[in-house]
Amino acid sequence: MTKTETAHLVADVFNTDFNHNLNYSTLGREILNTAEQHAEKRDFGLTQIRKSNQSWVLSRLTIEMNRMPHVFETYSIDTWIENIYRMFTNRNFCIKVSNSTDDSDPEVVGYARSVWALIDNDSRQPLDLTSLYGQTFEKWLYPENPCPIDGHSRIRPLSSYSSEVKYAIRYNDIDCNGHVNSVKYLEHICNLFNLEFYKQHRLKRIELAYVAESYFGDTLHFFMTEIEPLRYQIEIAKSSTADETPTTVVRSFVTFA
Amino acid sequence: MTKTETAHLVADVFNTDFNHNLNYSTLGREILNTAEQHAEKRDFGLTQIRKSNQSWVLSRLTIEMNRMPHVFETYSIDTWIENIYRMFTNRNFCIKVSNSTDDSDPEVVGYARSVWALIDNDSRQPLDLTSLYGQTFEKWLYPENPCPIDGHSRIRPLSSYSSEVKYAIRYNDIDCNGHVNSVKYLEHICNLFNLEFYKQHRLKRIELAYVAESYFGDTLHFFMTEIEPLRYQIEIAKSSTADETPTTVVRSFVTFA
Repeated sequence: MTKTETAHLVADVFNTDFNHNLNYSTLGREILNTAEQHAEKRDFGLTQIRKSNQSWVLSRLTIEMNRMPHVFETYSIDTWIENIYRMFTNRNFCIKVSNSTDDSDPEVVGYARSVWALIDNDSRQPLDLTSLYGQTFEKWLYPENPCPIDGHSRIRPLSSYSSEVKYAIRYNDIDCNGHVNSVKYLEHICNLFNLEFYKQHRLKRIELAYVAESYFGDTLHFFMTEIEPLRYQIEIAKSSTADETPTTVVRSFVTFA
Repeated sequence: MTKTETAHLVADVFNTDFNHNLNYSTLGREILNTAEQHAEKRDFGLTQIRKSNQSWVLSRLTIEMNRMPHVFETYSIDTWIENIYRMFTNRNFCIKVSNSTDDSDPEVVGYARSVWALIDNDSRQPLDLTSLYGQTFEKWLYPENPCPIDGHSRIRPLSSYSSEVKYAIRYNDIDCNGHVNSVKYLEHICNLFNLEFYKQHRLKRIELAYVAESYFGDTLHFFMTEIEPLRYQIEIAKSSTADETPTTVVRSFVTFA
């Protein structure tokens, strides 16, 4: 088995936006699916870790695209593990569009980086990956495979933000882990910008730092500030009652071109 | 080429709900994708009709499921054309879960029915399918293939409803046709029920009658009444200003078991 797992996909009509480009939430979902397939086939996927009462937790996700696949284009996602540390592991992705039927000369259209921890479902504490998976992971590590986009930015909370949007969590936000799905935050962040804005600007890079979980019944608060031209810092916080001070769930940067 | 087109799919982790069942919005999207693939391969798909400045418009969609595919299960969607009339065509679907690796004895888990019209993009008027596609369609018609679920109900508007939920249309609701995607209405209807309700009841049948289009900038109003135990009538209306009387976009019945 190779170090890299590849998913082959099509940008179908109902996953593309008004510009006929694949939407970020579908891409995000397929990125996580490809990661899961890579892990599953190498014996540390959900099926296996559930038996040990463990879960993979996504800590960071950064996606940077030169362009999105257009409607009807076939594209692929490669994923590989860059490295393993005691408490986390880095996994990278390369997104390519096929420009010929034999896929001989694919066009690299973007990359993604992610950081994961493995937690015990009862204690919710991260487990030592080097002792649990050190031997297993070793043969899959592929640090020499290039992922040329910048690493995850450090996202320091701001003392104040220029806008706030509230959103009550709904049924479809909750995934089979019982919390708001990682990709749903990305989708809601994309929804903070209006259609006129998207007609003029392309979402080039999105960075997400997952701090805590949120659940059905919580209200999400999206605090946003444009920190540089076309670069936005967004903090998602949750509250379970109207008078509760919201606590941070996700910190994010989004950069448009 | 066969009269039936089949899509092979997996209920992946990030498309399943808190109950580990495939969610209805993903199923709806895949149903429409399978329809598009069927049409595309038989020369009346989007690629072809766009050249004539035409669009397929979904008029009715009814999905009835005995059970949903569970996470990691492989499932398939068959689609075929039941019949063609002057102004519309009926297309049916059968959803099966594979219970063995060779797929020798699949379990039928549900069916769907749909009604489509072909419109001219400028006049927005339906075109005569019998003159445009009569010969072409003839060989694909498969009325003898059973679709044992009840036909689309007639949905008469109620004079009043017991609840109203408002929703401002967002970027991700808009598809490459520039209007709110058909499946997004289904997703928003699913979101009208809370997690406690879904813990006790299973969404068995959903019927959608598409009356008009809605756009970015519109607010959707979801009016709902429980007309029989576990059977709900939902009318979605749109308004573009706060004082405008909402006009109907979608009428729907949802039935839980």
